[in-house]
Amino acid sequence: MPALQKLAGKFIVIEGLEGAGKSTAIQYIQDWLQQKEITEQNIELTREPGGTVLAEKMRDIVKMDVVGEQLDDKAELLIMYAARVQLVEHKIKPALAAGKVVIGDRHNWSSLAYQGGGRGIDLQLINDIKQVALGDFKADYTLFLDIEPELGLSRARGRGELDRIERLAIDFFNRSRAVFQQLTEQEENAECIDASQDFEQVKAAIHLQLDRWYASL
Amino acid sequence: MPALQKLAGKFIVIEGLEGAGKSTAIQYIQDWLQQKEITEQNIELTREPGGTVLAEKMRDIVKMDVVGEQLDDKAELLIMYAARVQLVEHKIKPALAAGKVVIGDRHNWSSLAYQGGGRGIDLQLINDIKQVALGDFKADYTLFLDIEPELGLSRARGRGELDRIERLAIDFFNRSRAVFQQLTEQEENAECIDASQDFEQVKAAIHLQLDRWYASL
Repeated sequence: MPALQKLAGKFIVIEGLEGAGKSTAIQYIQDWLQQKEITEQNIELTREPGGTVLAEKMRDIVKMDVVGEQLDDKAELLIMYAARVQLVEHKIKPALAAGKVVIGDRHNWSSLAYQGGGRGIDLQLINDIKQVALGDFKADYTLFLDIEPELGLSRARGRGELDRIERLAIDFFNRSRAVFQQLTEQEENAECIDASQDFEQVKAAIHLQLDRWYASL
Repeated sequence: MPALQKLAGKFIVIEGLEGAGKSTAIQYIQDWLQQKEITEQNIELTREPGGTVLAEKMRDIVKMDVVGEQLDDKAELLIMYAARVQLVEHKIKPALAAGKVVIGDRHNWSSLAYQGGGRGIDLQLINDIKQVALGDFKADYTLFLDIEPELGLSRARGRGELDRIERLAIDFFNRSRAVFQQLTEQEENAECIDASQDFEQVKAAIHLQLDRWYASL
């Protein structure tokens, strides 16, 4: 079966802490898809939260600094899912239905990791919201770029000023990381990539895992 | 017991379709509170969605017209609850804790009526989201201003251009109205006011119901 046919309608997601190298990893996935002769017009890139006009407005609210008003943890969670359902229904599902490969910069796991692990909202509550918002929709394949929070944050710092989420303590990121690791272990169609390695090693690891996944399709 | 003590920390909500006269009704409630010698500094007014800087940003998203992108029904529902939890945690609960009377221009029933009845999202799903967002928090007393959708819309039209929600069909409002009516019947601390009556009659009806509720406290 040609690669385009095997990969048509697949949703590949990159998850990981700030500074793990998600943008670079997405480039490596695109390189791999090109080797499989999947061209640009058959690839859709998304990022979360955001990715549509309205979902980006929701992202703005999450990132916003308002004097004297902190965004409530559950409000943040609900906005994340509002943005996600908007992106999934408006962009991801139509692209998948058109036979494209969709590469997601974050998806559902980020809510479990950050709002659940990080902020301490019960994971079952988050799964309930997920079920209401998205039903059984999920990524076909997830790569978790694992990195020590300290290393990730120092990389993120090199990229400019930290935003509200990035400024939160290392403890927050350690709890988030633990959830990412747990989800990777539980999910069959997911692999962990050691993101502390140098670029060439990360690229090789991503291509190796994608090849294995591809062979299983 | 003095009225201030009996009414301290009570959350009174006005619900109803567009053009039912909620703003005027809120004035009547304030008049009634003044008769009970509850002064302005002991009253907090809120509106939903909105009522805090961040919740108003969420309201903007719900009201926004974006070419080529419609807000997904479930995204709308989740934003409504994000705005609601933000308002409840940031404004309503602190005001109630400070012994104020809070008067809400819409609250939880509007989501059941509009997103449930109107858009057809399962009411149980909405209740699940409500439970995650707000737990058992609810209004102490609710007045539903009941009006024929046609009459309400013609009043709303006199107020200026209709927004996205207002433009939706009369059928939508009929389904929403049915849910409001059903909730009023089910809830002990709620009454229906015939909002098609003239102003003085509506005022008298509201004061009568508030007196009855007050006597039960």
